[in-house]
Formats: sequence, C-alpha cells, structure tokens
Amino acid sequence: MKIESLEDIRKDLIVEKRVHIFNAGPAALPISVLKEVQEHFLNFRGSGMSITEISHRSTLFEEVINDAIDRTRRLLKLSNDYHVLFIQGGASLQFCMIPMNLALPGRPLTYINTGVWSTKAIREAQIQGKDVRVIPTSEDRDFSSLPTDFTADRQASYLHLTSNNTIRGTQWQHFPDGKGIPLISDMSSDFMSRPVDVKPFGLIYAGAQKNLGPSGIAMVIIREDMLKRVPGSLPTMLKYTTYRDNKSLFNTPPTFAIYIIALVLEWLEETIGGLKEMEKINKEKASLIYEVIDKSEIYQGIAEAKSRSIMNVTFRLPDKELEQGFLAEARKNGFEGLRGHRSVGGCRASLYNAVTIDSVKRLVAFMREFEEKS
Amino acid sequence: MKIESLEDIRKDLIVEKRVHIFNAGPAALPISVLKEVQEHFLNFRGSGMSITEISHRSTLFEEVINDAIDRTRRLLKLSNDYHVLFIQGGASLQFCMIPMNLALPGRPLTYINTGVWSTKAIREAQIQGKDVRVIPTSEDRDFSSLPTDFTADRQASYLHLTSNNTIRGTQWQHFPDGKGIPLISDMSSDFMSRPVDVKPFGLIYAGAQKNLGPSGIAMVIIREDMLKRVPGSLPTMLKYTTYRDNKSLFNTPPTFAIYIIALVLEWLEETIGGLKEMEKINKEKASLIYEVIDKSEIYQGIAEAKSRSIMNVTFRLPDKELEQGFLAEARKNGFEGLRGHRSVGGCRASLYNAVTIDSVKRLVAFMREFEEKS
Repeated sequence: MKIESLEDIRKDLIVEKRVHIFNAGPAALPISVLKEVQEHFLNFRGSGMSITEISHRSTLFEEVINDAIDRTRRLLKLSNDYHVLFIQGGASLQFCMIPMNLALPGRPLTYINTGVWSTKAIREAQIQGKDVRVIPTSEDRDFSSLPTDFTADRQASYLHLTSNNTIRGTQWQHFPDGKGIPLISDMSSDFMSRPVDVKPFGLIYAGAQKNLGPSGIAMVIIREDMLKRVPGSLPTMLKYTTYRDNKSLFNTPPTFAIYIIALVLEWLEETIGGLKEMEKINKEKASLIYEVIDKSEIYQGIAEAKSRSIMNVTFRLPDKELEQGFLAEARKNGFEGLRGHRSVGGCRASLYNAVTIDSVKRLVAFMREFEEKS
Repeated sequence: MKIESLEDIRKDLIVEKRVHIFNAGPAALPISVLKEVQEHFLNFRGSGMSITEISHRSTLFEEVINDAIDRTRRLLKLSNDYHVLFIQGGASLQFCMIPMNLALPGRPLTYINTGVWSTKAIREAQIQGKDVRVIPTSEDRDFSSLPTDFTADRQASYLHLTSNNTIRGTQWQHFPDGKGIPLISDMSSDFMSRPVDVKPFGLIYAGAQKNLGPSGIAMVIIREDMLKRVPGSLPTMLKYTTYRDNKSLFNTPPTFAIYIIALVLEWLEETIGGLKEMEKINKEKASLIYEVIDKSEIYQGIAEAKSRSIMNVTFRLPDKELEQGFLAEARKNGFEGLRGHRSVGGCRASLYNAVTIDSVKRLVAFMREFEEKS
C-alpha cells in the first residue's frame, strides 16, 4: 500500500483497529503469532484445553518447550556445549544470579558500565560483597557512546556487558575482546535481532519482553564449563545447574510465555528466514528513521552516531512544548510508545523484530509531515 | 442437561470440543475468562494492542494490577496492614525467600511436615544453614493424615505449614494455634477456595496455577510487621520490601498472568459471589466424589477421612491393570488429568475453583458406570 497522507494512515488503522507499536517492552509481537494464539486459545492442538490449562509435564507441553529450545539452537548455531534455559524473574534476577553462580574465588568481576541496566547489574554484584571492578565509559556524557578502547583484565572471573542500551539507544556493533575470559552479556533488548558469534560468551541472557515474547521469563544461554563454577550451597531456584538438570522444569515454568516464545521463534525462522534476514530488516528500519533525524532541523539524535542502536532510536525535539506536541500528535495518529524513558526524556522508537517496515515507513512519513507543519 | 449415558457425555464434548479438566496445575480456568481473553487478545480495551504488548507502566496496566489487588483485599477481607504482592518464581522461590527474609536471629524456624511440598520448603531453609526444627507428622504413614496435636514453639521465628497437600490429598480444616508466633502458609493449592481468617498469618503465598491463573507467578500476602525483619543486604529481587516499595513493579512483571488473575478474581467475586459461596460449591464437588469412593468396592481413598482435601481427591483401584484401564477409559470419555502424582501413583481428581459441578457430576456418573462394568 502506498501511503499518500495521514488520512490514509488513519483509515487503515480504523480497519485493523490496531496501532503501530513502538513500545520499549513489553513490546510488539508478530501479528501472525497473536492471531494463532487467539484462534487456538480455547483448544490447544485438539487437546480440548487452553495452553494455559495443560500440564507442564504433558507430552503436549514437552513438544512446545523442545521446539523453543531447538529453534534457539538453530537460529544461534549453538554447539552442544551450550544449554538453553528458561528462568523466571527477568533480567533483574539474572543480575543477582550471575555473581552468585559464576564468581571464581579470588578473581574480580569486571563490568563495562554503559547505562542504567549495566549499573543495576553492577549494583547486584556489589550487594553480594564481591570484588567488582567497573570499567567506566561515557558516564560523564550521559552514556551517549560506547567505549572503543580498553583492556580486559585476564584475571577476572568474567567480563559483563550490556549489548544494547534501550534507554540511551546505544548498541555494541563489535563485542570487545575478553582476552580469554568469558564474556557475559545482557542481550535483553537485541537478542535474536542479528547473528551473534556465541563462542566468546560464557552466558547470554535476555528478558523475553522485547524480541521473544511476553514478560515474565528470561532465556539464558550458558556454556557447560561455566556450570562447573556453581556453588553447591546455593538455594535450588537460584542455581543454574537446577535448570540444566531439570530441563527448566524443576518447578512449573511460565507455560504460556514459553508457548509464545516458540511461536515467535518459528516466525523468525520460517517467515523471516533467520537472523541474517532479521538483521537486514532491522537495519533498514533503523536507517529509515536515522535518515529523517540526520536531515531534520527539529529531530536531534541522542546517542552518538557511531554507537547508535538499531533497536532503540532515541531523539529529542528542540523544546519541551514541541516534543509534547509531537508525542500527542503521534499518538492521535496511531503511533504508540514513542515517549522516551522517564530517566532521559525525549522520544524513543523501539524497533524490535516484530515492528514492521510498514509501521516504520508510516512513522517516518508522519515525522516528515510533522516537521513540515511545525 | 440430564446425563443419561456416556453417549450423552461424548456428544456434548464434540459440540464444545473441550474436555473436563481435572489437572493438578496448571489447571482449569473459568471458561468465561478464557473466552474474554480470546475475544480481546488483539485489542485490549480499545488500545489497539494485545495485553501482551502494553507497557507495564501504562495506565491501562495499572488498572489491571490495581483491580487484581483490590479484589484480593475484598475477597480475603484484608486490613491495611497486609500487602498484596506479585512475585515470579512460583511457590518454589518462596521456599527460599521466606527463611532469607523472615528468620529472626537466634530464633529457630519451625515447619510442620505434611508432604512433598513441605519437605521442599524445609530443604530450602536448611540449605541456608538456618536452625530449622521440623514438626513431624504422618511421614511413617506416607503423609496420609494431618497432625491433630502438637505444641508450637513460642521462641520460633515463625511456624510454616502447607494448607493443602496436592499430592496426598490432605487439607487443614482448622489451622493450628501458633501461640502468638506468626503462621506462614503455602496455600498454592487451596488459595481462594474458601474463606480464611488471615489474622494469625504473617505471610500467605500461592503459586497462581491452581486457583488464580496461569503458571509463572505467585501471589504473596504479607503483614507489615514481617517486613521489618527483611535484612537490607539481600539481593534486590529477593527482598519482600522491593515488591512492597515498588507495588510489584520494580522490574517488568508477568503482565499477562496478572491480567488473567484479575479476570479470575472478578469471576470469583461477581459470578460466584465470593469465598463463602466458592467453598459451598467446592465442598459439594468433593463430597460427590468421596461419596462414590466410600460406597465403592473398587475405589479406595488414599488420605485418611478426617484429613481429606476438598481440592484434590486421591484414590486407588485394587490393581494396576484396573487402574490403567480406568485412566484410559476416563481419558477416552473426555476426563483429563486424573492420573495421580508420579511419587504416589493412583488417581487424583483436582477440583479447583474453575472445575464445574457439571464436570464433577459427569465424572461421578462415569466412575459409577465403570465400576458396574468392571
């Protein structure tokens, strides 16, 4: 469909009754996935039960969780020494589980601080009284860029980094060299958005509510050798080995969330065609908006150009009033979730996997039209 | 509809395409709730977004979580000194959070052991090296009854009990006297099934997947004075105070699960008419099956009569072959989830709130017909 005017956008929205979702998380899900969930919600695969009612120990559910794991393995090309785990508590519980499980005695924990989420991860390691060494970055410039130069500590237990910073809108394009020590990454906000060479990573974790599914679950990819570090004395639910030994079914997992994750990964693998294809689409979406920003008199990018994220595009307008006007007008035109994080302000378009090129083109048309009018 | 024969049951199932769900958890949900979720799944309250896509910080979601909390308060008649919290990790994470947060220095933790779930709760306190004192019960008789006589330790930090034992099918009808020390109860499998006087309880917790909603969340009711015990040094996600201070929104909660909980509580309050009414229905359902068992030559109750649960009715058939035949035949006739827990074997009909009297009457008719034929 060719977009002629804002009128067209409005008409189309009325037909679909759906808005264009640029939420930072929980975020847009593929419409085909939502429709499939809806269609079968009272009767999952002919069982006569809702997916929310079936036992997590049933063959039916086993197929679902295995499907989610197998697709993750294929998409990320995981070798057998990586485990795919599902853990409740989101990335925030991982902030605490990582130092608890993976600190080696007498060897410091190193963290690269690139924003709010890294800061939270660091805080949880400090609370536990660990020897935490923070590699500072652009804190003095409000974390608007990522470090290009630093040396990893070969004595460290691990080097932790946040692959994409949702709030500021920065993203690692090339991961730093860990000099042999395992990298650990919070990939919550760009997981499965692009191919990743997992080999340098001892652990990758991601809250599901950006690119994977609904909130209330995190996916953890962990390498077998890391599991040897887990102290036997930890509470059962806080040990990675519990999840490995019980295939994430030590207790009842969030079955509905895992079901949606399986469907989203199916869509990613079969409709999109994998991570390379996904990256191509995501790059295109981001560049469409950055192009508007770079040519604009009113939209100013927040992140430094070299550190820009393809997942979260952040920008400001020259004054509060114009910004409020922009956000209000956008909402009226069916663009949801463009308000920046409360700690930064401004605007943010989150372009997770399920956000369509079509939605982005409409947003871009709207941004141009708004600038012309203003 | 009058039930004439198994033929009638089959016909009806074909029409509805749904089965009669006696699952132990995840378990049946009210059909009206499932239909409402389905109808609005692509467009929640006119937002143009799915409930799974909306921000947990939006007004829309705030209404949902407040509704769930307010209904809980009304249903349980909670005074202002109780907080209603939502925490990920199910009852299993509570097993570890309770001793971590609520142990008082120099004062033992007391636990009444009435089965598998109590044993797990005890284990997690022991792992933390606490002074745990276990009040034994009928372990020698496979936990088939609950204690009637013991004295609470007035020096203890708390007295922990499991209000209903899903596996064995026993349930406290009157809670023990804590002699002034706070009771803590795992009510996962009978929460909201009957009125409870909360005053003796310092903390009540329940995994949602029995009577409240889908799996992946626990509801925690905690009294203000208990929160004074929480050590400041705990990891943020493992402190009850974090959930109180942030209204369960420190990190992204399982929004979909909370939405379903709100709908289930609405159904409980407005369609059923509250906990007294719910208890009446639940007692009727249970007595229908116990009546068959007590008059039967082939069905033998597992729990001792005085300790019987109205939520999980457990029974055996005289030999393995007949039992397998019963389970297979039941399944063929549209009765799902009747196999007993793997640790006990036998059969179990879980009669959680959403299981209808109609489903139970059909099961009872089937049980009678099976006995006549065998």
